[in-house]
Amino acid sequence: MANKIRVTVWGENVHEHKNEKVAANYPKGMHGCIADGLLEDPAFEVTVATLDMPEHGLTDEILANTDVMTWWGHMAHDKVDDAIVAKVKKRVLEGMGLIVLHSGHYSKIFRSLMGTTCSLVWREADELERIWICNPGHPIVKGIEGPYFEIPMEEMYGEPFGIPEPNETVMIGHFEGGNVFRSGCVFLRGNGTIFYFQPGHETYPIYHHETVKLVLKNAVKYVAPRGTLWKDDCPNVPEDQAPVKISKK
Amino acid sequence: MANKIRVTVWGENVHEHKNEKVAANYPKGMHGCIADGLLEDPAFEVTVATLDMPEHGLTDEILANTDVMTWWGHMAHDKVDDAIVAKVKKRVLEGMGLIVLHSGHYSKIFRSLMGTTCSLVWREADELERIWICNPGHPIVKGIEGPYFEIPMEEMYGEPFGIPEPNETVMIGHFEGGNVFRSGCVFLRGNGTIFYFQPGHETYPIYHHETVKLVLKNAVKYVAPRGTLWKDDCPNVPEDQAPVKISKK
Amino acid sequence: MANKIRVTVWGENVHEHKNEKVAANYPKGMHGCIADGLLEDPAFEVTVATLDMPEHGLTDEILANTDVMTWWGHMAHDKVDDAIVAKVKKRVLEGMGLIVLHSGHYSKIFRSLMGTTCSLVWREADELERIWICNPGHPIVKGIEGPYFEIPMEEMYGEPFGIPEPNETVMIGHFEGGNVFRSGCVFLRGNGTIFYFQPGHETYPIYHHETVKLVLKNAVKYVAPRGTLWKDDCPNVPEDQAPVKISKK
Amino acid sequence: MANKIRVTVWGENVHEHKNEKVAANYPKGMHGCIADGLLEDPAFEVTVATLDMPEHGLTDEILANTDVMTWWGHMAHDKVDDAIVAKVKKRVLEGMGLIVLHSGHYSKIFRSLMGTTCSLVWREADELERIWICNPGHPIVKGIEGPYFEIPMEEMYGEPFGIPEPNETVMIGHFEGGNVFRSGCVFLRGNGTIFYFQPGHETYPIYHHETVKLVLKNAVKYVAPRGTLWKDDCPNVPEDQAPVKISKK
Repeated sequence: MANKIRVTVWGENVHEHKNEKVAANYPKGMHGCIADGLLEDPAFEVTVATLDMPEHGLTDEILANTDVMTWWGHMAHDKVDDAIVAKVKKRVLEGMGLIVLHSGHYSKIFRSLMGTTCSLVWREADELERIWICNPGHPIVKGIEGPYFEIPMEEMYGEPFGIPEPNETVMIGHFEGGNVFRSGCVFLRGNGTIFYFQPGHETYPIYHHETVKLVLKNAVKYVAPRGTLWKDDCPNVPEDQAPVKISKK
Repeated sequence: MANKIRVTVWGENVHEHKNEKVAANYPKGMHGCIADGLLEDPAFEVTVATLDMPEHGLTDEILANTDVMTWWGHMAHDKVDDAIVAKVKKRVLEGMGLIVLHSGHYSKIFRSLMGTTCSLVWREADELERIWICNPGHPIVKGIEGPYFEIPMEEMYGEPFGIPEPNETVMIGHFEGGNVFRSGCVFLRGNGTIFYFQPGHETYPIYHHETVKLVLKNAVKYVAPRGTLWKDDCPNVPEDQAPVKISKK
Repeated sequence: MANKIRVTVWGENVHEHKNEKVAANYPKGMHGCIADGLLEDPAFEVTVATLDMPEHGLTDEILANTDVMTWWGHMAHDKVDDAIVAKVKKRVLEGMGLIVLHSGHYSKIFRSLMGTTCSLVWREADELERIWICNPGHPIVKGIEGPYFEIPMEEMYGEPFGIPEPNETVMIGHFEGGNVFRSGCVFLRGNGTIFYFQPGHETYPIYHHETVKLVLKNAVKYVAPRGTLWKDDCPNVPEDQAPVKISKK
Repeated sequence: MANKIRVTVWGENVHEHKNEKVAANYPKGMHGCIADGLLEDPAFEVTVATLDMPEHGLTDEILANTDVMTWWGHMAHDKVDDAIVAKVKKRVLEGMGLIVLHSGHYSKIFRSLMGTTCSLVWREADELERIWICNPGHPIVKGIEGPYFEIPMEEMYGEPFGIPEPNETVMIGHFEGGNVFRSGCVFLRGNGTIFYFQPGHETYPIYHHETVKLVLKNAVKYVAPRGTLWKDDCPNVPEDQAPVKISKK
């Protein structure tokens, strides 16, 4: 890891060009807004990458120089190349941090890392989401005042959420219509840390929300590589390298 | 679940036709031997399915009528059809039990459910494996006398084993050459229970081993569906079905 | 385990004698009501035990013949004898199931098994609790129609709930005043299964609620001992019993 | 957290005065040796505290100014004052890191945080321990060359180890006599991180071992407080502070 945490903000960048509301919320794209939020912290170096770039902007060089990736996608999940997903996954398992946002619950990368459906129930009805904090001392919620924060309008995501039991349930959200959801969850996979964060429906200006921006900045630090890389290749260890002398029978 | 636990024993059935030693160990195929071991328990109804059958023997009807599947594969992992793997995975997440054996650690179904590399280190050197029990009261080890059991010759599988932290570490194995391995692990995924069990290299008669047979019989009961099925479809819940009255803003 | 599951329903039995509302809700005591609910299932044999009995009704004989214990306590947690708590804990770690109810979150037995504060936020304000199901196929929710059930009036319990990450988060509750809570959680400890279930404030008739009764019946089956007992005594294994020959250096 | 990580090395300091071999291994006490090892890293500020000091050296002021505590105890576990244990536990749940060493598996503080027996099998026979690494990229093993390290002579600790499933199984040890043990485990409890590390029998000079010293230095950094403190008091939240307006019925 370099002195700065090198973040690659990946955005699908499709809704922005098809929906006026999204374009109005995010003149620089959702990825641009997320990147700007992170850049408030001088500890980060931020690159953006989008679906329409060659290799979706995730070349081997970019991947090798990314400490933390954030991922927002929705309507074009199936347009993401399987080979790129495999490369991103390899990097996460080696130690790169990954932050999966909102509809990214159904992205290839998240489903592939979780191994489960990652399904949920949903509704678009301009609902208030109130997000409660399950560990007020957790690094991801550092600086949030009080036991919860609110997002004035959000798409409802509700349980059952088809994830493996998280390593840490950091936040639970509640929606105006009555549903609840594990809105902030940490998973360890291989040598990588993954944070799933619910907020971010494209038709609301959620990535401009100060607390959401704060959570993202905290989360980047939390999921950043902590040790060295786990370079894995399922090696054969021949007899003469066994710590105890053995011989075939 | 029917009165009997309906088990489908899936076998790759390739080594048996290419290697005389394997053919000699398993005249009815490895799957045949595993099935015979399970049939010692009258509580089970057992079907075998192999790679060379149409749909690998895993038709929709067979899948719908399977409570527990056991999976052994090795040299032909990549010959297993992705669409069949997806169906098996769907059934596991709905509630079907899955027992993954030995080199099945690298099967598409196991890797897909774990989300990690499932990698390990390995060596073929006729080593004794001594498998220690981490919870002597666990249903999977019921009937085993003493704190460990031994397999006279086994392929070495060693740490690091690229799995998510198990829900239950039931057994840890040690090999003559010095390596250790989490040889018996339970994972919950969706509504299904998965048991990974290390023993079973094809060139040794391991599925004839009485304790291995006992573990498999116990494991079938342990991973068998416990509740009802979780039929998932990521449903939209329209406004008028929200428990609290809401309206778009 | 005998043919029937032998349940001991433990009740503090203090509020019933101090508060008219509680006495009116529970003429046979809260424990009596819980026991009656369980007795609807002929698979259970049910005994009640209360704080005021000799040894709190938890004699060695009763403990040795209990498969599952349910625990409700509140104002007299500190009146429970530490030696009795130690015996109950020993039995749970050996394999006895334990269901901890409502204010039992602060009981000596629950805190001692969790190792954490088991703290929460709370409010008595006649609030509706809506309890959402996180795995609709889970045995504990078998028979519940729909994605949630409601308790018309309940004391609010809210996050942060000071528990270790559960092995299974089965239910999440939401309260009328806006708070959320992990209302149904499974923990594995030693060889025992523990289920914490939020509902049950003494001033409301919650243990008469049909869905609550159903959950309790399901939970008894779920936490019932699955294997054999884990009788633990931290044994010394002398040199001549080591599987590999060793000698002091 | 101050600029330096403030470590308090707690030692029982009894064997050192009763056993010549221990005194010879550790002229400054075991705690003195552990402290010296940590002081090789200028990022740490180290204090020692022992059983025989007033309040066992763990005054409120010391506790309030400790980021990470290491704990070695054995023959005098029951001499540690329950009230001091409660204070240490409170600090761990608030966010202080804790490293529990060797026979500390049976200390009041570790058993109290785990909630289980923390039992194991053991033997004193001068056995080689070979400790394998389960995640070669983990911060705790940073700088260790190769897949394992060896301790020439150690007391055998073997499975079954009566702990809850760890959040991270970092190392598994194997002993010359054949036993295996989860020798390096991470647990999250409340807002604190706990690392249990097997090596350290008093009659061998294990805390002079370079790799053991390296692991301890790494572990201090790993368990150091990451966020802010979780100051918990199970607060009542009155009606007028509920985010949604409610009134008693």
